Amino acid sequence: MEHSNIKKWSAEFIGTFWLTFGGCGSAVLAAAFPQLGIGFAGVALAFGLTVLTGAYALGPISGGHFNPAVSVGLVVGGRFKASALPGYVIAQVLGAIVAAGVLYLIATGKPGAEVGGFATNGYGEHSPGKFNLVAALITEVVLTAVFLIVILGATAKRAAAGFGGLAIGLCLTLIHLISIPVTNTSVNPARSTGPALFGPSYAVSELWLFWVAPIAGAVIGALIYNVLLKDE
Amino acid sequence: MEHSNIKKWSAEFIGTFWLTFGGCGSAVLAAAFPQLGIGFAGVALAFGLTVLTGAYALGPISGGHFNPAVSVGLVVGGRFKASALPGYVIAQVLGAIVAAGVLYLIATGKPGAEVGGFATNGYGEHSPGKFNLVAALITEVVLTAVFLIVILGATAKRAAAGFGGLAIGLCLTLIHLISIPVTNTSVNPARSTGPALFGPSYAVSELWLFWVAPIAGAVIGALIYNVLLKDE
Amino acid sequence: MEHSNIKKWSAEFIGTFWLTFGGCGSAVLAAAFPQLGIGFAGVALAFGLTVLTGAYALGPISGGHFNPAVSVGLVVGGRFKASALPGYVIAQVLGAIVAAGVLYLIATGKPGAEVGGFATNGYGEHSPGKFNLVAALITEVVLTAVFLIVILGATAKRAAAGFGGLAIGLCLTLIHLISIPVTNTSVNPARSTGPALFGPSYAVSELWLFWVAPIAGAVIGALIYNVLLKDE
Amino acid sequence: MEHSNIKKWSAEFIGTFWLTFGGCGSAVLAAAFPQLGIGFAGVALAFGLTVLTGAYALGPISGGHFNPAVSVGLVVGGRFKASALPGYVIAQVLGAIVAAGVLYLIATGKPGAEVGGFATNGYGEHSPGKFNLVAALITEVVLTAVFLIVILGATAKRAAAGFGGLAIGLCLTLIHLISIPVTNTSVNPARSTGPALFGPSYAVSELWLFWVAPIAGAVIGALIYNVLLKDE
Repeated sequence: MEHSNIKKWSAEFIGTFWLTFGGCGSAVLAAAFPQLGIGFAGVALAFGLTVLTGAYALGPISGGHFNPAVSVGLVVGGRFKASALPGYVIAQVLGAIVAAGVLYLIATGKPGAEVGGFATNGYGEHSPGKFNLVAALITEVVLTAVFLIVILGATAKRAAAGFGGLAIGLCLTLIHLISIPVTNTSVNPARSTGPALFGPSYAVSELWLFWVAPIAGAVIGALIYNVLLKDE
Repeated sequence: MEHSNIKKWSAEFIGTFWLTFGGCGSAVLAAAFPQLGIGFAGVALAFGLTVLTGAYALGPISGGHFNPAVSVGLVVGGRFKASALPGYVIAQVLGAIVAAGVLYLIATGKPGAEVGGFATNGYGEHSPGKFNLVAALITEVVLTAVFLIVILGATAKRAAAGFGGLAIGLCLTLIHLISIPVTNTSVNPARSTGPALFGPSYAVSELWLFWVAPIAGAVIGALIYNVLLKDE
Repeated sequence: MEHSNIKKWSAEFIGTFWLTFGGCGSAVLAAAFPQLGIGFAGVALAFGLTVLTGAYALGPISGGHFNPAVSVGLVVGGRFKASALPGYVIAQVLGAIVAAGVLYLIATGKPGAEVGGFATNGYGEHSPGKFNLVAALITEVVLTAVFLIVILGATAKRAAAGFGGLAIGLCLTLIHLISIPVTNTSVNPARSTGPALFGPSYAVSELWLFWVAPIAGAVIGALIYNVLLKDE
Repeated sequence: MEHSNIKKWSAEFIGTFWLTFGGCGSAVLAAAFPQLGIGFAGVALAFGLTVLTGAYALGPISGGHFNPAVSVGLVVGGRFKASALPGYVIAQVLGAIVAAGVLYLIATGKPGAEVGGFATNGYGEHSPGKFNLVAALITEVVLTAVFLIVILGATAKRAAAGFGGLAIGLCLTLIHLISIPVTNTSVNPARSTGPALFGPSYAVSELWLFWVAPIAGAVIGALIYNVLLKDE
């Protein structure tokens, strides 16, 4: 069944809201809680589970992209129409911005609240582990490229039916387990944009990287898939 | 096959017992164990796994709600009959109370035992991170709303068969990864009620929020689903 | 296809070896590693994954019990022949003993090695959190009872096909997330017996509880299932 | 559909790249991050998720071995042609080497970077927990043997369709939960070879063990499976 555009955009808005609210929310609220905090591993799990849950709940409606880089990669991979890209990307970015706004409301709702980095992405001085621009760029490109290969492969016709949401969601967990120390992990321009608008001022000035690198990585991943792995 | 009411109520009683005993049990007994404790991430995993396991074992009998807010949301979403609500909610609350009682017996079974907050939910002074009433309210409403969207979406006809229990259980894990610091996470009035009866006295006086907010969130989530995402 | 007894006993031997070697191995070798140790949550995950992996790999051969209490509960639940019980239990206990022996070899293979509690189960003084005999008894009975309900429900005809191994394995993870502080978690007499033979001397004298309580719990769980939840 | 050799080798190259980059990357970059690091449990999860995601995305193309020991074991188990072994092993080792190179670029991309052990495998002085050669050997042989039993069993005709990738990926997580303290966990000669070329000099001189033991274990596991567990 083909769904209406409104329904698809709603699914992408809600899914990207959930990805940003859930992933960044776990980071801002719970990661560094004294003694009992969930740490980077908990944040990694949270990001992955936003996609896993969104994929099973909303995937049948919109495809479950929740990420402009994924949408672009799926166009390159021949799974998504370029003409549908603007609507999807706008819905995704709006979802992420609203998510960051709601999270800001909650995070500031306590005495002496400080939002700190507010789960924004950064490099150099603003990388959690002080990794430089080149390291950040390589990391985001490589991880988004593999992300697209996993997405394209796990949803191919030959793939085990139903398991795509599991594999793709847990792939995002894996990506975070590797790279939170490098860039705080983006691989998703919408997820980077939302918090940047409410976080420290440097976040907006470094935002370009988290549009360029994930989209470049997604295109590279889709091309690798097309050339080397695609079904005949 | 339609099951008898007794069978359905038994499934809801046992499932909500399990949710409360398992989730709150992990929090009370294991979260803050010196050096080796499971922390908030372990508690989040435990809550989610109570629902995942209950969904696969008991879901085919009762639908696997284990949560009055979910039952209400499913009525609004058109998946559950309003007339069956009272029986389900009573079974759920009784299951949670018995679970808290058994947990109390275990938790006090050691020299110098102190049950502390006994995994109750709270806000302001009694929020783990001292988040105020408004932050608590927003958090519980938003998270229960998305929980219902995930439940309705992942069990829709178009959804991948069999994966609902996985997505819904891990969604509860995700919800806890975000919000234990804010309210100790409810999104479930029954789960809040059981421990409140055995825990510190403030828990009962703040219990209203954990009936109002999850139910309001569930209704909002179901309405969003009906309006924006529902199958034709 | 009906498998030969030798094949079934081999599967139970290997599966219980894996449960004991993997679960207790993670506890003995990795739980308390300085700074980076996996803690109780990692051990809980390890125990659950032994059953998850064993269920998918060996379940089709023997049913994947790996636990005398489970085998007894399945007899009560009408899913397993009483006459096959002795062979299964012997294979399970032997698998656990061999596992503990191999683990002992590894654990002592370093300078100044001390095996400590060697992942044995205990109560009172030998409970990780000093919980008394009554608390230990209640915990083991309740958790094994729910374990059987999950096993019987998740493998019933009406259950989602294929998901049983996931639900049952992660149920064992959940059980450990709750109860490692109380008894170091048994719910499995074979798993308790193996390490007791190589661990501190008190472990054998407290071993009776970890045969009596899990088997009693399994019988209770199966009876609850039969009376309240069973398919017509 | 039979895929071309180029496609299969590409899948094995990419999958082993992902296993090594993701697993070792999480160890090098994130395991010991101050306060928030993912620890051994996070690294264990990362390794397992590389295989889980690779299995669903690439498994339908090449079988998803990503490991020379697995390829050898599958030959012994009668699931893979010996004549295809050289191409697979070369692709796997090249993938692991490229992964280690990219990881090295990233890891050194910060001021005062030190790669330390660079996630290499070792024994004795270079075992994380100082376990000796015999303990290392037993551990790697036993774990690879069980890994093959799980792989052969979970992908047998009688096994639940689609769940193989889940069981096999999480089996690798489990293997790491047990054995990182002993050898830093190999069970995969390719994964050991990549980092050894960029890490401390002792890693190459101890590399022989991580070819011999996993392959010996894989052969033993496949033989046990053939003799005791195989479908008629």
